Amino acid sequence: MNQQQHAPVPPDTGGPVHDPVRAERLAARLRAALGPGKVLSDPAQLRTYECDGLAVYRVRPAVAVLAGERDDVVRTVRICAEEGVPFVARGSGTGLSGGAVPVADGVLIVLSRLRRILDVDPDNARVRVEPGVINLWVTRDAAPHGQAYAPDPSSQQVCSIGGNVAENAGGAHCLKYGFTVNHVTGAEVVLPDGDVVHLGGTAPEHPGLDLLGAFVGSEGTLGVTTEVTVRTIQAPETVRTMLVGFHTVEDAAGTVSDIIAAGILPAAIEMMDALAVEAAEAAVQCGYPEGARAVLVVELDGPRVEVDALFTQVEEIAGRRHAFEIRIAADDAERALMWRGRKSAFAAVGRISPAYYVQDGVIPRTRLPDVLTEMGRLADEAGVRVANVFHAGDGNLHPLILFDDKQPGAAEAAEELGMAILDLCVDAGGSITGEHGVGLEKKGKMTRQFSADDLDTMQLVRCAFDPAGLANPGKQFPTPRLCGERPGVRTAADTHDPALGEVF
Amino acid sequence: MNQQQHAPVPPDTGGPVHDPVRAERLAARLRAALGPGKVLSDPAQLRTYECDGLAVYRVRPAVAVLAGERDDVVRTVRICAEEGVPFVARGSGTGLSGGAVPVADGVLIVLSRLRRILDVDPDNARVRVEPGVINLWVTRDAAPHGQAYAPDPSSQQVCSIGGNVAENAGGAHCLKYGFTVNHVTGAEVVLPDGDVVHLGGTAPEHPGLDLLGAFVGSEGTLGVTTEVTVRTIQAPETVRTMLVGFHTVEDAAGTVSDIIAAGILPAAIEMMDALAVEAAEAAVQCGYPEGARAVLVVELDGPRVEVDALFTQVEEIAGRRHAFEIRIAADDAERALMWRGRKSAFAAVGRISPAYYVQDGVIPRTRLPDVLTEMGRLADEAGVRVANVFHAGDGNLHPLILFDDKQPGAAEAAEELGMAILDLCVDAGGSITGEHGVGLEKKGKMTRQFSADDLDTMQLVRCAFDPAGLANPGKQFPTPRLCGERPGVRTAADTHDPALGEVF
Repeated sequence: MNQQQHAPVPPDTGGPVHDPVRAERLAARLRAALGPGKVLSDPAQLRTYECDGLAVYRVRPAVAVLAGERDDVVRTVRICAEEGVPFVARGSGTGLSGGAVPVADGVLIVLSRLRRILDVDPDNARVRVEPGVINLWVTRDAAPHGQAYAPDPSSQQVCSIGGNVAENAGGAHCLKYGFTVNHVTGAEVVLPDGDVVHLGGTAPEHPGLDLLGAFVGSEGTLGVTTEVTVRTIQAPETVRTMLVGFHTVEDAAGTVSDIIAAGILPAAIEMMDALAVEAAEAAVQCGYPEGARAVLVVELDGPRVEVDALFTQVEEIAGRRHAFEIRIAADDAERALMWRGRKSAFAAVGRISPAYYVQDGVIPRTRLPDVLTEMGRLADEAGVRVANVFHAGDGNLHPLILFDDKQPGAAEAAEELGMAILDLCVDAGGSITGEHGVGLEKKGKMTRQFSADDLDTMQLVRCAFDPAGLANPGKQFPTPRLCGERPGVRTAADTHDPALGEVF
Repeated sequence: MNQQQHAPVPPDTGGPVHDPVRAERLAARLRAALGPGKVLSDPAQLRTYECDGLAVYRVRPAVAVLAGERDDVVRTVRICAEEGVPFVARGSGTGLSGGAVPVADGVLIVLSRLRRILDVDPDNARVRVEPGVINLWVTRDAAPHGQAYAPDPSSQQVCSIGGNVAENAGGAHCLKYGFTVNHVTGAEVVLPDGDVVHLGGTAPEHPGLDLLGAFVGSEGTLGVTTEVTVRTIQAPETVRTMLVGFHTVEDAAGTVSDIIAAGILPAAIEMMDALAVEAAEAAVQCGYPEGARAVLVVELDGPRVEVDALFTQVEEIAGRRHAFEIRIAADDAERALMWRGRKSAFAAVGRISPAYYVQDGVIPRTRLPDVLTEMGRLADEAGVRVANVFHAGDGNLHPLILFDDKQPGAAEAAEELGMAILDLCVDAGGSITGEHGVGLEKKGKMTRQFSADDLDTMQLVRCAFDPAGLANPGKQFPTPRLCGERPGVRTAADTHDPALGEVF
């Protein structure tokens, strides 16, 4: 995690609610069940697990379990169910919405040791892995067969497949290839009562209710995955990348719309505005067009003949939108440099601002020009600088809100702007998250996006999986629902709000 | 529906369980709520709605409601909920698994009058429709913008989008483009208590639980859709179609595997065996290669340069697998003729057999040769003829089991073989349905595919949506689960098994 990234302080803060006696009793029971070397309860050791990529929320769990096999997860969840203790699963902890933040007197189930690649089946284009397997390893093992795993979050060198499943992770190439949910065909899941079920499988479609789709992106609230089957795609014959400089953000946004309207589906269309380009240039000397108010990175892949023909069309479209510089990567080194600018942008922004806050929202592609203009107006009004680096092709914005964390009130102003940007996305017909998830950060915004009945229906399903509210409570939903029929009975979801944990 | 298609008699038969007094009281209440011209209770009028495309199951409902607007559905469902009456939604009634068969003393909600296309938005590639809209109309309205709706069931000229959503319909081009679930981005749903919720929307991904994925393919058991938003795809620049004749089924199956293994993803790869070719030839004189034991229809689409390059590769692959005739459609007329053979195959088989029964199963593509061989062995053993016409590219088999319905025991033998073929599919690592759904027909096979815990989890979700078990009861699950905590309380799902209805 980039140390310079900070999100603002959450509204509800309070001291830790640890009960050391209860924690030790729980740890002892888990140690007896799992054996040595798997259960941590020393507060110093537990500090490692206090937060995820959204480093603002810090909560120390009572116990951390380093699961070494599937049955460790089953035993831990069973014990939690028996004791009424909440649990949170964690992969690599790179999430950006606080989805893997522990619960103060709960168990954190760490899945990183479950990192075996169980089966590579190129003939049926499937790879079966344990949840701690790193995203990039799937492509690494599929590559000798000419295949690849498509979803590519920026953190793909460190993030885990289990976490990708929990958050329905995206990435630059999801424009063409879809999100994690479009690539997972099966999952083994430990339900909150400890039962093990199989959702989906290897076939493209399954009879019965498609609970796999609901499970992917459920942010740990329905259970813990212990095995994932993903499909792999044929690695493209050719990949070509183009860097295009524009004098206005509107022309860049118009080019994105025109490319898609022409029926061209690039592997990726990434956009960066002047501030993001300036930061990237200062950090990694990527040679982006000088003086550009906006830059597009357009990547096409597929059979060579197709890519060549479409590239010519993209050049023509950009030209009609007054692009002042069009550069096509001549070789892999030039291509890598173009991506280096884009991929380093988040970190690079950390060099031009003491702190920043990454937002994640979605708008219909056609609304890009006016939403970007309105976002600029809101930022000016708030006196806050915003750098834009985002997946333009699918309208997935990532405004980087810059602030000085030493200045009183600056973090709050940044947060306020971030939330106003989400409102803007919803009003434009979009969504409050494209790929980072809701987690702790955005649960308060769910009511902007969904009606009370919509949220109620989701929580009814959540209650079906987890009537006691023990699986990652306090995430995703603004107000936890009481499961069951007896009014007045409070569930763990009500009493274990992680926002009551320790905040740095 | 082709009159010559018959499925065997279901195991549980019995007389109708109509209660005319109760039916008339219910009809009167519905008439008072909905106004004139929308509520049918005359048994003669109700006969029209007794069955769907799987014409063997015939049950006369107590009342049929011809909904003219969304609120008719809401009012009907509310009344059903208040009276504890089961309801079944029906679109065009072309389904092949008995999913839209009514319940004997329940309400059938007919959605065919809800047939407005509400919005065509080519810039964001979305079309919003009412559920009674015919599948092909979406493409018709998207075509002027150079777009199309990808899922194309064989019944696309008559089947409705609402039914497609209920059954997660497929089609020949799902190999490349995916199933209905991959093309629906939002749905307005009337829940079994009459509440209206919105699942998904227009953005590609949404926060919260993805209940849209679970809803698509839930066969009417979670509620009734009243509005559907689908994404449209860019219509391809070029479409080219090839007909390939083989001396053996194994060579044809091997060609399918080799094409996919080479990284080529055709728009469609359809396979027909000798019996299916013979039937099609006799019916529509499609000019298929004479003496072929198996024929492939391979269609590639995309930019012309890509299609031309890949077509050459496909020819080489087929040549290496000893194809004895490769014919490429020179123009649209030839292309239409190639498809005519394939698309008429079901009906054509009706000319060579008094009756037949269509099965629907999935196997991993790599298992095609041995599963087809084993299927042939089972058919020989049973003394039954089987014609194979299927979506080879994604391993979706459609064996047509031929029998003489005048001969005692023949229907039962055909059913037995059909069920044995499904077992074969499951054992090969596949699934009991590719695109027709479970419905009434295959609910008994769900335990072959899923563990008791898997099915229990699905039913828990079903109970979350529909605790009283009123939405399309008796479909999809072999044993309805009691929802709620009070043992001994029987729900409508238990008492209204449609198999207890009238059987022709």
